[in-house]
Formats: sequence, C-alpha cells, structure tokens
Amino acid sequence: MSGEAFIHRVVVRPSETDRMGVVHHSRYAVYLEEARTELLRSKGVAYRDVEREGRYLVVAELETKFRRPCRLGDTLEIDCRVTNASYVTINHAYTVRVAGTAAVALEAKTRLACVDAQGRPQKLPEVLLRLLNVT
Amino acid sequence: MSGEAFIHRVVVRPSETDRMGVVHHSRYAVYLEEARTELLRSKGVAYRDVEREGRYLVVAELETKFRRPCRLGDTLEIDCRVTNASYVTINHAYTVRVAGTAAVALEAKTRLACVDAQGRPQKLPEVLLRLLNVT
Amino acid sequence: MSGEAFIHRVVVRPSETDRMGVVHHSRYAVYLEEARTELLRSKGVAYRDVEREGRYLVVAELETKFRRPCRLGDTLEIDCRVTNASYVTINHAYTVRVAGTAAVALEAKTRLACVDAQGRPQKLPEVLLRLLNVT
Amino acid sequence: MSGEAFIHRVVVRPSETDRMGVVHHSRYAVYLEEARTELLRSKGVAYRDVEREGRYLVVAELETKFRRPCRLGDTLEIDCRVTNASYVTINHAYTVRVAGTAAVALEAKTRLACVDAQGRPQKLPEVLLRLLNVT
Repeated sequence: MSGEAFIHRVVVRPSETDRMGVVHHSRYAVYLEEARTELLRSKGVAYRDVEREGRYLVVAELETKFRRPCRLGDTLEIDCRVTNASYVTINHAYTVRVAGTAAVALEAKTRLACVDAQGRPQKLPEVLLRLLNVT
Repeated sequence: MSGEAFIHRVVVRPSETDRMGVVHHSRYAVYLEEARTELLRSKGVAYRDVEREGRYLVVAELETKFRRPCRLGDTLEIDCRVTNASYVTINHAYTVRVAGTAAVALEAKTRLACVDAQGRPQKLPEVLLRLLNVT
Repeated sequence: MSGEAFIHRVVVRPSETDRMGVVHHSRYAVYLEEARTELLRSKGVAYRDVEREGRYLVVAELETKFRRPCRLGDTLEIDCRVTNASYVTINHAYTVRVAGTAAVALEAKTRLACVDAQGRPQKLPEVLLRLLNVT
Repeated sequence: MSGEAFIHRVVVRPSETDRMGVVHHSRYAVYLEEARTELLRSKGVAYRDVEREGRYLVVAELETKFRRPCRLGDTLEIDCRVTNASYVTINHAYTVRVAGTAAVALEAKTRLACVDAQGRPQKLPEVLLRLLNVT
C-alpha cells in the first residue's frame, strides 16, 4: 500500500468558505482525514472497524503548506498516499488540486499514532499492519 | 432556575464567518450549546460531571429565527433561560444581540432529552432535577 | 420543481462526530445546505452563479427534529424538496435516513430569503424564479 | 512586539470534541487563529480594521505537534508570540497547555502572508509594520 496513489474528491461546501470567499485553512485537516479514511476503505477496511477493536488513530503531527485558495463549489482532488509505516506510526503525504487545474493548492504531511481509549500508545491493529506490509 | 435570565458572551471567531462576512447559520447551534453549558456552570454544575454519571443531554428539537447578521469581532450577548422542565426534558429559549445594540440578531428554542451511552431515553440526573425544581 | 423529490447522499466524516460517537447536532445544518445546493445543481444552476449576480440566499428560519443518532461512516440519504416559493422566499423540507434503514433520523424545514451584499432583502434572481415557476 | 509572551484562554466547547471525548485535531487551527487575533487586539489593533484596508492575512504554512489530548470543559492556555516578521510575512509560535497543568498539549508554528481581495501578495498594512517594528 505504501507509496500507491489514491485520489479522493471533495466538493467544497458553502459553510467551509470564509469571508474572503475561500476555504478556511482549518477545514483542510478535515478533508485530509476524509481522504485517508477513504484510502483505507478502498482497501476494504472501514475505519470504524479499527475503532471497534478499541484502537484509535490520532494525529501526532500535521504540516501544511497552503499554495492557492480553493472556492465554493470547487471539486478538490486530494492525492493521498502512505509514505512510511512502522508498528506504531503511519505517515501520509497529500497534494490537493482543484479539479481541472494543474497547480497545487495545498501540500501536507501527517504522522498518525495508535492509542487505546485511555490515550496510551499501542501497536497498530493487525489489519493495518498487514495492509501496510509491516513485518 | 426556570425563567431566570443568564447572559453568556461570545466573540465571533474568524473561522465562523462565511463568504458574506457574516456568521454562518450553522454556527449558532454551537454558541447556544455553549451558553446553556455556561448557564449550568453558573449554578455550580459542570456538564462533564453530568456525563460522568453516564447520562447525556441531547438536542431533540431546535428552532431558530435569524433576524440580523453578526460579523467578525462582534461580541454576542446570548440571553439563555430554561422555560420548562420535566423528568425527561428541558426546554431553553435564547435571544442573541450584538453587544451595544438593541436589535435582536437571533431567537431560538431547544428541547433537550436525556439518554444513556446507548442512546436510550433516561430520566434527567438528580443534580439537574434538583436544580430545575422538578419534583 | 416544487414538491419534486431529490435525494442527496453524504458520508459522515470523523470530525463531525462528537464524544458520544454520533454526529453533533450543529452539523446537520451543513448537510442540509449541501443537499439544497445539490438539488439546485441537479437543475443546472450552480449556486455560485447565483452569487455572481450579487444575490445571496440566507437562512431566515430553521426547524429541526432529531429522531435518531447517526454515526461515523454512515451514509445519510437526505430527501430534500421545495415545499413553497414566492418572489422573496423559498421553503424546503428535509427527511434524513441512514442508508439501508427505514427509520427517520431527522426532519427539518428551512425558509430562505434573498439579500444583496449589504444584507438588504431582494427579489430572488430570475434564474431561480423561473426554476420555481413563480410568476 | 516580537518575542513578547501573550496568553489567550479558551474553554473547550462540547461541539469541538470528537468520539474519543477529546478535541478534534482540526479545531486547534481555530484556537490558534483566535489567539493571534487577540494578541493583536491586546495591542490596540482590531483585525477587522486590517481587513477594512482591503488587506487579508492568510495562513501560508502551519505546523502542529499534538502532545496530549484536551477534553470537554478544559480551559486551554495558549501562549502565542511573534517570532519573526518581514514586509510580507509574520511568523508565530504557540504552546498550548491545559490550565493548571505543566505538560504541553500542543506546539505549533504558523507563517502568515498578506494578500488583497484578489489573493495577490501585498506588503503588510502600515499599522502592522509599525507594531512589528519592521523598518
């Protein structure tokens, strides 16, 4: 799964724009989370099944570079891929473009960690380790 | 507690405005929830203590009339009061004004119900029944 | 267009759930807005084209009854229709179900009004009046 | 102003928690924006006055490390300071703690750029350059 490209599409909602008519920067973290959840689903893993095992993936680090504004009604194409994974962490990289344009709107990286319901660090669930070929 | 006036103040955040430069209508439900949580706190009850008993107050009905727009940096004065309560439900009424103006920006009503972690209807917690003089 | 059924589908995002594991009540106003924007788009009208004419549709009234909780990963089916329209106002009604279930999760009504960039009431744009058969 | 400490306090709202009972990671960008807006206000500059000149501060980069979860009802103390400024950019650093605890919940950095209503890069407004001692 590592490195494989996956494109998730999101249409900007009216409520996600701010008074400049562009998507508020805080909204992209939500889009990125949706993209990596859909990447997982495309591999046959529903995120809520991960949670049913009492494991949660939490964002430990987030780095975002905002290149160009996105607007109401734009369709965003989010290229989301796993760059690296270990027993306790998954790194993703993201590139966002407005559909039909070549210019990059946003680049981002996240590092996810796995915790239990009390917030204590845990090994990733087996279903994820297998998917990520961590051995 | 029923009928008593309580004013909660909120300063509009940049992220809460939309492309018209005004607070997006979906945001007010968040302000109203904050206002009734603070009303409770002003009576010595922390909402998370209610939850520790395994009870949750959920919104069963919400009715809002939007009269005038609010803007970035406005301080909102939310008049929040209990209008009615029973063993299983609490009704609140809200009037929102921009500080320093007399005109009403928004009027709202909510009906809250009490449920357990599985979402089953429950009697309100004792601490609330006492506060609300439900006997 | 009045009365015609239209179903818009939304998948619940992780960020839209609250500490009870269910969609926070304030989020539904965002889903409803997306549904009526997509209803319009299904008729060939992009909402941002309405705005390009300097007209904005604002929510004047919102009434919601929350029947059952929705959860992470649920696909919501939002039945959204115009119930009534005049030169200055459009009313919508909404029924939300979790896909694959018959039970209603939420019922809602909105009344939209049309304003200019200064917030002054205006007649609806021609493109909408034609669509709505207001004559 | 550069380097000077400023503490902004925020109480976590119910709607800001997610199904783990902790603040969703996307919310912190909103808190940080509020903190730097209040830092500005503490110096006598209302952010909306900056905007009235047709200038907007946009986030060009955001870097966040999430150390510990924050919960419903927690009061967050956000230490927000300017680390660096030029004619076209302002850098801030942030440290967030839950009030009454010494442990860091979150560390972040932002780089802001100045644009006009069309999104074109601009020099920072005079009022900010003076405040930041950029000469």
